Amino acid sequence: MNNIKVIAFDADDTLWENETFFRIVEAKFYSLLEEYISPQELSAELYKTETGNLGIYGYGIKGFMLSMIETALRVSQNKVKADIIAQIIALGKEQLAEPVKILPGVETVLRSLKDKYKLVLATKGDLVDQKRKLNLSGLNPYFSHVEIMNDKTIHEYKQLIDDLNCSPCEFLMIGNSLKSDVQPILELGGYAAHIPFHVTWSHEQIDKPIEPKRFVELHQIEDVLTYIP
Amino acid sequence: MNNIKVIAFDADDTLWENETFFRIVEAKFYSLLEEYISPQELSAELYKTETGNLGIYGYGIKGFMLSMIETALRVSQNKVKADIIAQIIALGKEQLAEPVKILPGVETVLRSLKDKYKLVLATKGDLVDQKRKLNLSGLNPYFSHVEIMNDKTIHEYKQLIDDLNCSPCEFLMIGNSLKSDVQPILELGGYAAHIPFHVTWSHEQIDKPIEPKRFVELHQIEDVLTYIP
Repeated sequence: MNNIKVIAFDADDTLWENETFFRIVEAKFYSLLEEYISPQELSAELYKTETGNLGIYGYGIKGFMLSMIETALRVSQNKVKADIIAQIIALGKEQLAEPVKILPGVETVLRSLKDKYKLVLATKGDLVDQKRKLNLSGLNPYFSHVEIMNDKTIHEYKQLIDDLNCSPCEFLMIGNSLKSDVQPILELGGYAAHIPFHVTWSHEQIDKPIEPKRFVELHQIEDVLTYIP
Repeated sequence: MNNIKVIAFDADDTLWENETFFRIVEAKFYSLLEEYISPQELSAELYKTETGNLGIYGYGIKGFMLSMIETALRVSQNKVKADIIAQIIALGKEQLAEPVKILPGVETVLRSLKDKYKLVLATKGDLVDQKRKLNLSGLNPYFSHVEIMNDKTIHEYKQLIDDLNCSPCEFLMIGNSLKSDVQPILELGGYAAHIPFHVTWSHEQIDKPIEPKRFVELHQIEDVLTYIP
């Protein structure tokens, strides 16, 4: 990793907690509909709705709210009461107002790398919500560029790396998703560091193993400091 | 306007039609709830919900869908039937799949300015939906930078102009909203051209007149070519 000039960080579940809030809201959503369907079945139905809507809604809480409502209507065969829909909206609004919990070691790493590399935040999700979290986190000053991506595809990463005027071999991506933060970067010829979070959305899981070339697996985010000087 | 180096275009209702689709969906929404409330009153209630939610939802169709659902629940005192909620979601999904209608003169203007200035697209709204419309429009190749803004405040424009490495007196913004595309730019010391669209959302309307300094009012978008060489 001697050539690295730009280090990009994923945000959700890399810099701050995210998936845990989805899990809490989902559990409450399952309770709201228990007269119609079991939690296990509802979880599968919700996932089906969410992935089916990703193309038009993209990632983030507003799409999640709409998918919960759509799922509630479908599994109840349009019999669900209006006050349950109101409670789903209230759950989503609470989630949109959650405080930002920065993960351990993040500030140490950012502080240590800030003056030696160009640091970038590269996240997908809802524009308003990601900007809200970034502002609340106080981490904004560490980053010289913030990119809220539609999706973390090879194509979008290539455009980002081009916009940053660097080449893939000068680019290191750090994130919790093998699918979104590691695979596309390795395919582009860049470097990637994976820092697992304790829960991962099914949509972010992959089956095939990652090749070790230009890739490191971290146990804690501070470990990245042993790989880059 | 001799110093202009960067020309930024608003997208919705400047490059392509937008507000008209909201009006069509709103009219259908009013019909769905006519047993509870008159269209005039419902329009006011919806506007109250939308502006109340702007801080957490931002601009765009997903927030609009959630605000329609919330309004339907409130005005019916949680008596609205589930199938009406399902129809609101269907209306929003149709809107998210609308074809992109480029406005007259837009391509002529972009083609004429493309090699002489740095062209930027600066829009607010939903990330996924704006990227979808840009891709469908085929206008992408005209722009060297695309900025999807959280909101069009002085602060966000200042950051954009800084990121583009230009100064406000080298920056011209063209758009249909006096509030979002003209006022903040003039306050920053930049140039602005207003091209009115035949419908304007109440939230984008302003009371006080615009001072004529560094400002031009266009009747059609091609008129901008008479002001910049």
